[in-house]
Amino acid sequence: MKFNKITPELAEAMASIVGREYMVLPVDQEGMARYTHDETEDLRYLPEVVLKPKNADEISRIVCLCHENFIPVTPRGAGTGLSGGALAVHGGVVLSMERLNAIIDIDERNLQATVEPGVITQVFQEAVMARGLFYPPDPSSRGSCQLGGNLSESSGGPRAVKYGVTKDYVLNVEVVLPTGEITWTGANVLKNATGYNLTQLMVGSEGTLGIITKIVFKLIPYPTQNLVMLVPFRKEEEAAAAVSNIFIAGIVPSALEFMEREAIVWASRYLGLGMTMAEDERAHLLIELDGNDMDLLYKDAEQVYGVLEKFDVGDILVADTEKQKEDLWRMRRSVGHAVKSNSIYKEEDTVVPRAELPVLLRGVKEIGERYSFKSVCYGHAGDGNLHINIVKGDMSDDDWNNKLPEGIKEIFRLCVSLGGTISGEHGIGLVQRPYIGIALNEVQLRLMQGIKQLFDPHGILNPGKIF
Amino acid sequence: MKFNKITPELAEAMASIVGREYMVLPVDQEGMARYTHDETEDLRYLPEVVLKPKNADEISRIVCLCHENFIPVTPRGAGTGLSGGALAVHGGVVLSMERLNAIIDIDERNLQATVEPGVITQVFQEAVMARGLFYPPDPSSRGSCQLGGNLSESSGGPRAVKYGVTKDYVLNVEVVLPTGEITWTGANVLKNATGYNLTQLMVGSEGTLGIITKIVFKLIPYPTQNLVMLVPFRKEEEAAAAVSNIFIAGIVPSALEFMEREAIVWASRYLGLGMTMAEDERAHLLIELDGNDMDLLYKDAEQVYGVLEKFDVGDILVADTEKQKEDLWRMRRSVGHAVKSNSIYKEEDTVVPRAELPVLLRGVKEIGERYSFKSVCYGHAGDGNLHINIVKGDMSDDDWNNKLPEGIKEIFRLCVSLGGTISGEHGIGLVQRPYIGIALNEVQLRLMQGIKQLFDPHGILNPGKIF
Repeated sequence: MKFNKITPELAEAMASIVGREYMVLPVDQEGMARYTHDETEDLRYLPEVVLKPKNADEISRIVCLCHENFIPVTPRGAGTGLSGGALAVHGGVVLSMERLNAIIDIDERNLQATVEPGVITQVFQEAVMARGLFYPPDPSSRGSCQLGGNLSESSGGPRAVKYGVTKDYVLNVEVVLPTGEITWTGANVLKNATGYNLTQLMVGSEGTLGIITKIVFKLIPYPTQNLVMLVPFRKEEEAAAAVSNIFIAGIVPSALEFMEREAIVWASRYLGLGMTMAEDERAHLLIELDGNDMDLLYKDAEQVYGVLEKFDVGDILVADTEKQKEDLWRMRRSVGHAVKSNSIYKEEDTVVPRAELPVLLRGVKEIGERYSFKSVCYGHAGDGNLHINIVKGDMSDDDWNNKLPEGIKEIFRLCVSLGGTISGEHGIGLVQRPYIGIALNEVQLRLMQGIKQLFDPHGILNPGKIF
Repeated sequence: MKFNKITPELAEAMASIVGREYMVLPVDQEGMARYTHDETEDLRYLPEVVLKPKNADEISRIVCLCHENFIPVTPRGAGTGLSGGALAVHGGVVLSMERLNAIIDIDERNLQATVEPGVITQVFQEAVMARGLFYPPDPSSRGSCQLGGNLSESSGGPRAVKYGVTKDYVLNVEVVLPTGEITWTGANVLKNATGYNLTQLMVGSEGTLGIITKIVFKLIPYPTQNLVMLVPFRKEEEAAAAVSNIFIAGIVPSALEFMEREAIVWASRYLGLGMTMAEDERAHLLIELDGNDMDLLYKDAEQVYGVLEKFDVGDILVADTEKQKEDLWRMRRSVGHAVKSNSIYKEEDTVVPRAELPVLLRGVKEIGERYSFKSVCYGHAGDGNLHINIVKGDMSDDDWNNKLPEGIKEIFRLCVSLGGTISGEHGIGLVQRPYIGIALNEVQLRLMQGIKQLFDPHGILNPGKIF
């Protein structure tokens, strides 16, 4: 795809659409800096211009200009992505959604909410919680990430295991297409058998098919009670194996997270929590049960204990206070940042059927030995979604850049051979793009590229991502 | 789209693929009869040939022949559809999936199952229930419909209100594309952020984008307890209004069904149940709560009573025995057939945000008065999904054929104006096709038709449906 550069005339036209104060140019190095990266490794890409539009109409006018003039457009949420999805790899326009940040309506009669994409996930969660309602998707970055980004990457989080991921709460979206038209994708209903599912085609499309400008979410009643426990295991693989056994026993926890020893050690140190743990505790499961009746949760917990008894576990910590629960969750959510603060790393977002987790974990370690890399594994084990943080440590630059990718390929091939795939919730974006052929066959790729061509004939929207 | 007729040579080639005993020709009037209609009104379309392949490979070879020769192919499940989706309106091949009827694997370790599309829904439900597992989608026709048809129409059923519709349980599908290639659409995982969501594009595409040959379902633990009650209301609109109030109180029932008086009277008569009801009872809600703890269900029921107290309700019947529960459900499931046995009718499958149900119901009656049609309304009120059975009764053929469609348009426009759409779970198929422009705008239609063209460049797969 051949793109043009933004001429001074085009820049002028863009400024007149959004207003000069909502345009950032490279000359403003400080203002530009935050738009050049996301949370993916250490990648930096400088756009030609950052625009901060206020609404779908302004976005449509910008996109029309870019469509006509073959200028790349990269939509951007909060830049918390882990696959490079918000990076302007071909230059052009970065379209920051930060000013589309209104919670338009919380409809308590219908248990629905309409929001703009730039709303921070946690802000939205708290706004609906204040009305007794629950928006379950909770990526670790929920304090800073935006809902539009969550949709684009089909984000998950710990509670997906019981409540589903972002896509399961999206009823309808308003989008600006790469050709400039503004349309809704569906209707504000819980069931829809009216034509193809454009809504679910847009969700998870990583900003390559359209720019999300409004979202209608489904909400559910807020569960009033929960119970959180931390379970130490003496063998990593036993922790992974316990996961599927809990479900087989008929229990669906509201979270079921796996953390290798290092994940906890590093996160605890990062947060200054000063957690101690026995030398022989190699991995932990963080288990949350929720509902509206504490007695029932205790009964469920008894069943969970029954499962855990069959494994070599240490002392189970049941959180007594809200503070203790919050500390455990803060620790879990900080693992990514803790690892990052420790070393350059790559985060792989593998996912397999959950009973295959022990095989995946064993495989990752075995591949790591052969390719001389160290990995810290953790993640949403209840969903079979294992984050593998590969830390650079003492690895040479040459091995990191040239040898490691072969090891990553082996990990991904293992995932696919187990019925899984290469991304559960982070997306393909830029960094997993070289591996897409491991997960998708030629027919699937042809169909996806055909869909891309249909929506975006000039290929201007978030080019260089997915394929 | 211009199609060719099946020549004797082509018929011969088809016979050699599936075997002559699995081919039905029009000369066999008796054998052919069941393939000429579904449950939609009284429509009849005669295909040129019915083929009963055994596997994806045979289907691929048939589809390749048809693609090369511009022969229409209409995939067919059990023919229980309510929108004419399985009717061969352009002749050609009807591809019956009845021999692809294996439950390939019930994976208790991963709570997944792999099936062929011709498995009867209830057979599958009972097979997984025998392992303590739950496949919730339960269209009224579950005793005879097939899973492949359920996927194609994105079927729902009463339990969708708590558990979601068919699409929410589909992890991955194997399809034969209209060009003959065989591919899976995704991976066997609970979360997938790897490229566009081809799985959800295929689900609900009404057999126009591919022929489903295998399905991987997600399963959940089976809830062990339930509580069923029938609540009579003296005003239809109050019954409709009570629905959203139950959710607002924080209760998510496992079913919340609305039935107008006539729906119950006709179904009770049809089944010979001999139910009596007070003259002033105009509508009923059938409410089911489920879970694993009977005490908790009683507590939830108390909260439901608290909501119902605010409305003018009669004596609430709480089913005491499994037999009584089964009778109530049998009655609910028979409404469609009961109405059909009473008169020629059209069934509209409207859906709106649930709190708008009273407005929809009032609107339907008002429109019915103006256009002189009688309607019997019932359905999955918890989802805002109201089935409107318009009975012909004494209506003249002229009014039925020419005046009524205008009334239906008014109903659909009302749905859309309330944030809803024209089909919740039956699909557009043939019979709602004239109304698609009410629900979808030009941009949406252009994208959908573009997707159709991409998947099926010769337009052979289920032509004449949706658009």
